[in-house]
Amino acid sequence: MGEEREAAREAEIGRIREEIDRLDEQIQALITRRAECARRIAEIKKEAGDAEAFFYRPEREAQILRRVLERNRGPLSDEEMARLFREIMSACLALEQPLNVAFLGPEGTFTQLAAFKHFGHSIRSRPLPTIDEVFREVEAGSVHYGVVPVENSTEGMVSHTLDRFLNSPLYICGEVELRVHHYLMAVGGRIEDIRRVYSHRQSLAQCREWLDAHLPQAERIAVESNAEAARRASRETRAAAIAGEATAHIYRLRILASNIEDEPENTTRFLVIGRQQVPPSGNDKTSLLLSAPNRPGALFRLLEPLARHGVSMTRIESRPSRRGLWDYVFFVDVEGHRSEDKVAAALAELEREASLFRVLGSYPRAVL
Amino acid sequence: MGEEREAAREAEIGRIREEIDRLDEQIQALITRRAECARRIAEIKKEAGDAEAFFYRPEREAQILRRVLERNRGPLSDEEMARLFREIMSACLALEQPLNVAFLGPEGTFTQLAAFKHFGHSIRSRPLPTIDEVFREVEAGSVHYGVVPVENSTEGMVSHTLDRFLNSPLYICGEVELRVHHYLMAVGGRIEDIRRVYSHRQSLAQCREWLDAHLPQAERIAVESNAEAARRASRETRAAAIAGEATAHIYRLRILASNIEDEPENTTRFLVIGRQQVPPSGNDKTSLLLSAPNRPGALFRLLEPLARHGVSMTRIESRPSRRGLWDYVFFVDVEGHRSEDKVAAALAELEREASLFRVLGSYPRAVL
Repeated sequence: MGEEREAAREAEIGRIREEIDRLDEQIQALITRRAECARRIAEIKKEAGDAEAFFYRPEREAQILRRVLERNRGPLSDEEMARLFREIMSACLALEQPLNVAFLGPEGTFTQLAAFKHFGHSIRSRPLPTIDEVFREVEAGSVHYGVVPVENSTEGMVSHTLDRFLNSPLYICGEVELRVHHYLMAVGGRIEDIRRVYSHRQSLAQCREWLDAHLPQAERIAVESNAEAARRASRETRAAAIAGEATAHIYRLRILASNIEDEPENTTRFLVIGRQQVPPSGNDKTSLLLSAPNRPGALFRLLEPLARHGVSMTRIESRPSRRGLWDYVFFVDVEGHRSEDKVAAALAELEREASLFRVLGSYPRAVL
Repeated sequence: MGEEREAAREAEIGRIREEIDRLDEQIQALITRRAECARRIAEIKKEAGDAEAFFYRPEREAQILRRVLERNRGPLSDEEMARLFREIMSACLALEQPLNVAFLGPEGTFTQLAAFKHFGHSIRSRPLPTIDEVFREVEAGSVHYGVVPVENSTEGMVSHTLDRFLNSPLYICGEVELRVHHYLMAVGGRIEDIRRVYSHRQSLAQCREWLDAHLPQAERIAVESNAEAARRASRETRAAAIAGEATAHIYRLRILASNIEDEPENTTRFLVIGRQQVPPSGNDKTSLLLSAPNRPGALFRLLEPLARHGVSMTRIESRPSRRGLWDYVFFVDVEGHRSEDKVAAALAELEREASLFRVLGSYPRAVL
């Protein structure tokens, strides 16, 4: 009986494998036709003498991915299905124009992950040691795009990216979000034995409630990066680090607690920078650089047109200006594309009021 | 007229984009069906109580990829098409069993590239600082597979991987090949000004003819890694390094010459190690660990059964034994799977003659 069941199972698996083989053949035929279509579009654009940088169309990719997600009914997760389509698009694009993408290195960082998440793996990626150099390479045209952190909860380099836009003609062409989890890790032992917790200042802040509840006795020591925190914890017996999961493996630390961030949807955000103004995708954001005259209530008045035209502000951050003309500059993200009527109307009013006004870019909202 | 042509072009691009959208919908439907098939196979295996490690079938993946390559007629390259199918298989497999794969770190190394090339990106990858630790984690069952360099032209860690098999019950489950190119890089200047060339010993050896012809005057200085070579070159004016392309970007060096390796098909080989004996895929290799009695002609006699049974040897390497019982052990790769008649016959004779005999594994030959 057992043997019969075994034989029936084997036969069933054999039938399913044959079906997989047939499916693979069809998938391949369709991917091939898709690549031929992409090549044909590139040929038409080349005949028309279009600039090379514009083979890549961020708004079109965002639209395709949104449709992929709308159609997805499982069993593959939305993340996995989106990933496969990003890779298919990446391969088709590379046929005609392999994209060169610079990112804030070194390899193995979240920024590299973000670059691959956005562009797929058929790109030539180039790690650079500073945000400034990523901007310079894109400005010089030696790469097509750059990827830089802008709200980076673990590496703390937010401000420099925004400041750099003050002196750059580049546009924001896209945003990438990565979900980031924090882990408490140590050489060994129990949570209650921990006397010191090392981490980057921002990570410590993001886990404050958890630390208050579980490690009230431990000293919190801010260090320059989470990797440095792990390195220190690996050399002490009663110390722990807060860092990402991969870091624990690198430094051979045991994970004592997982997902200890107070805000479970803790994401890190990256910007794709380029020389291209992206047309609307149907679900976009617009980033602005503003400065108000230095008068009481000036900022409030400055932002009033956004409210009046029903444009939602998703983020505002003030930065001390380095130019001397303004005390502060503001980085503002709003919902919608600059070509949409209400956004255009609000921006026109804003521009009249602001002493400094620049649209850093309209770009598709991050898809997943 | 120009406007009409422009409108016609736009209309044509619009039609092609609609076709791409239809193709994407079909591709997605087929990938979804494929994932459902994979899930169904996993359910059948679970009902039968199969060990979890065996959801991943190296021989089946190799067969699928070979068929993909046979069918490929472009425009996508074989590499890109294989990559897309690896990712599709990776995503389908992760549905039921996310694979944990340890590799020799840190991130950003060729070994990590090899791990992703082999398993796709839907794995949980874990960089470990030494080859020994990769073996230990796989032996302990805390990861499913490990990836280690075995013929590594740039990092020079060949020998340790082979030696480690002497004390390990693990099997070789697969091999991965990466094509590696060498670049000459320096802060600036011209090739003729270079007085010192830093690189890993193996890279220097692999570019010997090129160096003799183009840099006869320069001193060659072996350092521990190509990254270290680039770091040194970045601090001197008349020094160059030989390293991979990415390294030049990291250390901000100019590439003075490309693909300077004497052997243009310079590949680096990695092994996938696991606890699994892989069934035949139809195009396999078998790796053996042997020792001959310490008598004149013993090695020759030992290998004679291979020749007599028509089994080709693709590689042999002798290593000093650390066990004291044998002076030397030999690592031998032969063509074919241990279950094939002629291989089985040759191995049976070999086993009778050898003082030490172990089959490290039969596994699919690297696909691309």
